[in-house]
Amino acid sequence: MESPAANDVNNCDSPASKKRKLEDNKQISIHESLNNLTEFKLEKILYNNTNRKSICLQGVFHNSKEPALVLLEKTGFTETNFNGDSEFFTEKSSLKQIFHNDIYGNYEFLPKLELNSIGATIIHPATEKHIKKYSIQNVYLVDETPALYEEVTLPHITEEQFDLQWVYNILDHKSEADRIVFEDPDDTDGFILIPDLKWDGKLESLYLLGLVRVHGLKSLRDLTAAHLPLLRNLKESGTKAICEKYGLTAAQLRIYLHYQPSFYHLHVHFTNLNHDAPGTKTEKSHLLSNVISNIELVPDYYQRATLPFIVREGENLVAKFEKKGVLTRGACRSSSP
Amino acid sequence: MESPAANDVNNCDSPASKKRKLEDNKQISIHESLNNLTEFKLEKILYNNTNRKSICLQGVFHNSKEPALVLLEKTGFTETNFNGDSEFFTEKSSLKQIFHNDIYGNYEFLPKLELNSIGATIIHPATEKHIKKYSIQNVYLVDETPALYEEVTLPHITEEQFDLQWVYNILDHKSEADRIVFEDPDDTDGFILIPDLKWDGKLESLYLLGLVRVHGLKSLRDLTAAHLPLLRNLKESGTKAICEKYGLTAAQLRIYLHYQPSFYHLHVHFTNLNHDAPGTKTEKSHLLSNVISNIELVPDYYQRATLPFIVREGENLVAKFEKKGVLTRGACRSSSP
Repeated sequence: MESPAANDVNNCDSPASKKRKLEDNKQISIHESLNNLTEFKLEKILYNNTNRKSICLQGVFHNSKEPALVLLEKTGFTETNFNGDSEFFTEKSSLKQIFHNDIYGNYEFLPKLELNSIGATIIHPATEKHIKKYSIQNVYLVDETPALYEEVTLPHITEEQFDLQWVYNILDHKSEADRIVFEDPDDTDGFILIPDLKWDGKLESLYLLGLVRVHGLKSLRDLTAAHLPLLRNLKESGTKAICEKYGLTAAQLRIYLHYQPSFYHLHVHFTNLNHDAPGTKTEKSHLLSNVISNIELVPDYYQRATLPFIVREGENLVAKFEKKGVLTRGACRSSSP
Repeated sequence: MESPAANDVNNCDSPASKKRKLEDNKQISIHESLNNLTEFKLEKILYNNTNRKSICLQGVFHNSKEPALVLLEKTGFTETNFNGDSEFFTEKSSLKQIFHNDIYGNYEFLPKLELNSIGATIIHPATEKHIKKYSIQNVYLVDETPALYEEVTLPHITEEQFDLQWVYNILDHKSEADRIVFEDPDDTDGFILIPDLKWDGKLESLYLLGLVRVHGLKSLRDLTAAHLPLLRNLKESGTKAICEKYGLTAAQLRIYLHYQPSFYHLHVHFTNLNHDAPGTKTEKSHLLSNVISNIELVPDYYQRATLPFIVREGENLVAKFEKKGVLTRGACRSSSP
């Protein structure tokens, strides 16, 4: 449901675009014969995520001048490997002690080779776009005042004219009609609840989107007291529908809006509170209960508040804020205007 | 700086408490002779984190009736392994293709055994406390209204009487004086900036805390317009000190308060915006610029707003909220009062 690039460094092109490229490209692929990486010459490490245990290497294969990307990611533990006759814990797996202290022992564990594989994705030939996508990009925080919204962000949104046809198709039942989880058809306060494309269908990572029926609400910035019935309906009816279908109660859900959103038709994210969903950090997400409380306190809260949000190196918005003198990356002074 | 249990499932007891236990426990430790895990009998998987690639197993060793915990975590990639004569990419490492499509190839990579070790921590004998600590605990979201704060949270904070002596020791230069990064000695608006205990000292994971000099401010809930000079000082002077010492500008910092905090003496977190620091999700963290903006809009904002926050299964607060009928885990109705 989100734009494909958002927060997901492992996304690939759509099957349709892959197919198109396959037809254009009749040369023999490196993937026809690759069975080890001895021919790979490393040029640059694009990222190394020590938390996820994944790394992205840029280089070339000796028989080709075109760049290649090698993405390695350690595999998670397979629970069935530990059941019954644990293959993991045989004499073939060794344990080397590093140190111990009282009841705590620290070891290096070397399991049977085949039980400890690494997932590898190899992209060849890789384009500039692939390399940019897999390179770490710096992020910056902008404290967006109402004036900066009017002068920089709003003109930017209007200029870029994000295509919303896919949203209207859902609202009009022209696509994904069979995926709808819940629908309130009211023209003003209604919405459609639908699984997010990122959701793998498991309860632990539950991820749904509530798309409002009303057109023209771009983001948090457009919300006023007039929208309280809509917002309360999203919270109450959305929660009830999820509870009835999936068994998670309100206290087990994270219900929030992104600022900036990835598309400018008002929508609310519903995720399992126990799930570490992407884009749930404080610099990006606003809990719906908080939003409702803010508008109850101050009817034009979202037209008057400073709303911090993040921009990524290379985005057009960065240059626009820099031009305004807002985003100072070199000098030691505040970024606030 | 945070309480040891906060957000860190890999924390162990303090060295002092370890030493104490070591003296009490003269029996021969399992760690004296362990060199494989053939004797380990699995009873329960306490957690399996497929994102971090870590798992915690509870079981027993055949020669002992006392419970043992085996924590396994795949290791991150070591960048030097890829330099020069890459040990990783020899003929001893095999690559098995799973599928390929156009320029994308998906493989299973099996590197040389020794280059793909798994970190293991073994705790034996493990206590009930260890088992509880490493078990996944469900979290719940509570929409805390001002009334609920007064009736449930505030009495709870008062009852539990969190010890703040360690904070006063820092403020009085009685401990950690050599770690202070910046100090503004003003009695009302001053603060001490000090590295968080979780910080490993690398710029990429920068993590500092600003401890206010004034006593008696417990959390966000106590902040009013009277504290705007203090809050602005934390933001401006804290940012300036960090920029001068570490070179990160305001736009590269995430500056925020936790609600609930792990200790009830007002403090502000300063982390590198690029760092995925624990406790930065929207249900836990409040950006300082947002806090300032809220109080500028409504002087008593934090005495009037609904502040959602998370509670963990087993915490005393959960039972207290349940008693109030706020936290409904079974029935399909909203958790809001």
